[in-house]
Amino acid sequence: MADKAQLDAVLAQVDKDIDASLSRLFELIRIPSISTDPAYADHMRKAADWLKGQLHELDFDAGVRPTPGYPMVVGHAEGEGPHVLFYGHYDVQPVDPIELWNSDPFDPQLVDGKIVARGASDDKGQLMTFIEACRAWKAVTGKLPVKVSVLLEGEEESGSHSLPGFLDEAKAELKADIALVCDTDMWDPQTPSITTMLRGLVGEEVEITCASQDLHSGMFGNAARNPNQVLADIISSLRARDGSVTVPGFYDGVEDIPDSLRAQWDALGFDEKAFLGDVGLSIPAGEKGRSVLEQIWARPTCEINGMIGGYTGEGFKTVIPARASAKISFRLVAGQDPKKIREAFRAHVKALVPADCEVSFKEHGGSPAIALPLDGRFLNQAKQALSEEWGKETALTGSGGSIPVVGEFRRRLDMDSLMIGFALIDDRIHSPNEKYNLESFHRGIRSWVRVLASFA
Amino acid sequence: MADKAQLDAVLAQVDKDIDASLSRLFELIRIPSISTDPAYADHMRKAADWLKGQLHELDFDAGVRPTPGYPMVVGHAEGEGPHVLFYGHYDVQPVDPIELWNSDPFDPQLVDGKIVARGASDDKGQLMTFIEACRAWKAVTGKLPVKVSVLLEGEEESGSHSLPGFLDEAKAELKADIALVCDTDMWDPQTPSITTMLRGLVGEEVEITCASQDLHSGMFGNAARNPNQVLADIISSLRARDGSVTVPGFYDGVEDIPDSLRAQWDALGFDEKAFLGDVGLSIPAGEKGRSVLEQIWARPTCEINGMIGGYTGEGFKTVIPARASAKISFRLVAGQDPKKIREAFRAHVKALVPADCEVSFKEHGGSPAIALPLDGRFLNQAKQALSEEWGKETALTGSGGSIPVVGEFRRRLDMDSLMIGFALIDDRIHSPNEKYNLESFHRGIRSWVRVLASFA
Repeated sequence: MADKAQLDAVLAQVDKDIDASLSRLFELIRIPSISTDPAYADHMRKAADWLKGQLHELDFDAGVRPTPGYPMVVGHAEGEGPHVLFYGHYDVQPVDPIELWNSDPFDPQLVDGKIVARGASDDKGQLMTFIEACRAWKAVTGKLPVKVSVLLEGEEESGSHSLPGFLDEAKAELKADIALVCDTDMWDPQTPSITTMLRGLVGEEVEITCASQDLHSGMFGNAARNPNQVLADIISSLRARDGSVTVPGFYDGVEDIPDSLRAQWDALGFDEKAFLGDVGLSIPAGEKGRSVLEQIWARPTCEINGMIGGYTGEGFKTVIPARASAKISFRLVAGQDPKKIREAFRAHVKALVPADCEVSFKEHGGSPAIALPLDGRFLNQAKQALSEEWGKETALTGSGGSIPVVGEFRRRLDMDSLMIGFALIDDRIHSPNEKYNLESFHRGIRSWVRVLASFA
Repeated sequence: MADKAQLDAVLAQVDKDIDASLSRLFELIRIPSISTDPAYADHMRKAADWLKGQLHELDFDAGVRPTPGYPMVVGHAEGEGPHVLFYGHYDVQPVDPIELWNSDPFDPQLVDGKIVARGASDDKGQLMTFIEACRAWKAVTGKLPVKVSVLLEGEEESGSHSLPGFLDEAKAELKADIALVCDTDMWDPQTPSITTMLRGLVGEEVEITCASQDLHSGMFGNAARNPNQVLADIISSLRARDGSVTVPGFYDGVEDIPDSLRAQWDALGFDEKAFLGDVGLSIPAGEKGRSVLEQIWARPTCEINGMIGGYTGEGFKTVIPARASAKISFRLVAGQDPKKIREAFRAHVKALVPADCEVSFKEHGGSPAIALPLDGRFLNQAKQALSEEWGKETALTGSGGSIPVVGEFRRRLDMDSLMIGFALIDDRIHSPNEKYNLESFHRGIRSWVRVLASFA
């Protein structure tokens, strides 16, 4: 633990240097590093070089590492105590529809305390909070309080295709005691947050084939099996009347969240009515007796993402189609094995397909859920540090979606991640007029200063 | 009843005149009367005029009557006894794909006892069997054995849009004791048939709206109602495990077919295995304990003709859509009221839609089933006449589909129809190389000679 006087000096340095910090962020934002569009390849390389330069300034042993796609920026700074790996990404989303922007997406503007630009929040503003925190430590103490490695990716917005291979290759140098991932939200503008749970995913496509050709429903209707009906029966069978998923063994290994976490979630004051009301709904659809927050963060689900069969154009056609298909995904929580869930689902479906019809399956990805141990030292130290900065208890949150890099760190580097971010729900990431509050940036830097101190 | 000697003379006249009859049919076929393509409008008019000419030759009071679409050919011939209205249509389907024809579709060829051309069977060959029968009667006896009116439509292949209005306008002159509709099959090449049952239809489109926008299944999955799931639950609820339709009141008024008809159907030797096997199926899907023939001719059904919701393109998208929809049709049998069925279906669906979601319906047509009284004099006389011509018991068949004109005659002219046709299942109507067996044509003419005699 760094001493109080030293910490205060570093925080004061952050405050003193904030205008220069902002200038450096603006420099990075001005490089249009859109990874999905090959036309921006030169800018991608420029952004990676610029970041390597920043790390060099802080005496990191840093380099731009090639991959089959865009390069990784990797840097290492020696230090005492534990080893942390910081992850961020330097690529951004395309800017379309450009006509909805109030200013040039790559000419950052400070408007009413908000940095407006593509990447201002996702993820340039967020990753620079960490680099600027390192800069302040370095400026005041000449070194970092712990051993720090940095991994900055250039393909997060385009599928992270090079990441798994790169992690395997660079495992020895990247494996740390904990990963710090800065790509998430705060609970609200006053409440710092650490995301400790991410749901996993199993994606399946199922196709039912009945007759060998489309049939006329006058000629065959009743006697010929209708694959739309078979598929609807299957889909309907996936949920019980109480909202639970009926695939045999689906809840095996799923445990209720600890009482302490439940109490904390209850204290967050989540407004179920507003959450559903904002999208025009009012009645939670999942398992009865579970709060909405629990349903989306801590309970597994089955969703029909798409289904199609027969004639779906204008007007009417009295056809009995030969085929019908659906795309079905399961969001998983800790304790569920994606492979077992997939197998159980397929067995469940096969049992419902009439003997003279056929079923085929197509796999669309699978990953287990992430659940950080709630009694870990890094979690508790970071939680304390964030609470001190923001003057409010840190929220331990879940997320219904997934952040692939966290799964990859777990799977390939056997390493947990602390997901700490300062974005806000209204940052309009991926949309026109993306913004990052200056306060998010400034206090984000201060937060990382404290988190690094807490690990020392 | 015409006397036996007279009948034999008329039949002999048919045999003697068959080459000339065939020439006249070829003349009609050579007029490319495609009603769906406006480029053929002149030919449509020409075909109508040609038919009027045929009727004039037989001393019909005949005319070409304008409609908002293509004209009707109407003719009346006085006669003693009952009044029959014969219906056929002079328009034909387009010929595409033209490259699959072995000869010019509008240059009829006689190949191995088969007349090959567009319209050879549907419906020029069929309608000319009746006109040639009248010609033979006229040639031998100087008159027709009963009072005959003829109605030849030019829009059957393009939706019969002008038919209802024309029937209302011409009700007084067209209302007869029985309609004769020549647009159906024989049970097999040896077995003459009268179709006595046609299923009705109710078409519905149902759309479920849950959230006000598409949602991310990570953010909302479980808590937000998924319209694909709601729709699948609704569709699944429409059929019980025993294959019956569950809409309340659906079977009200539906009666089992008479034992005499069942015995006749059993005697037809319908091959269920071959029927289903031809389209790759083996297990009948409708109500358990009913034969396949009964299921498609005499039992009502519910079919999902189309359904769609969410992402259905390549790959995967973890979306919870705002909307899902299905096109659903009910085939009806005698005793079912289309209006009541539609209302019962909508009430059934509404009861299953969660309170915070919405449902909307769109009507896609509705018509009641047709069931001819089995003890009617015309049916029994025609049945006897056909049996005498073909030397085999006439089959009384049903049809799972519908023939709109029969419903219109019932609804607007309060008139039953005898559906008697000589087409065969392998006539390839609507397809390349359509054909009509010369025997169908020749014995079809002879059949009508006998049927008219039987009514006298």
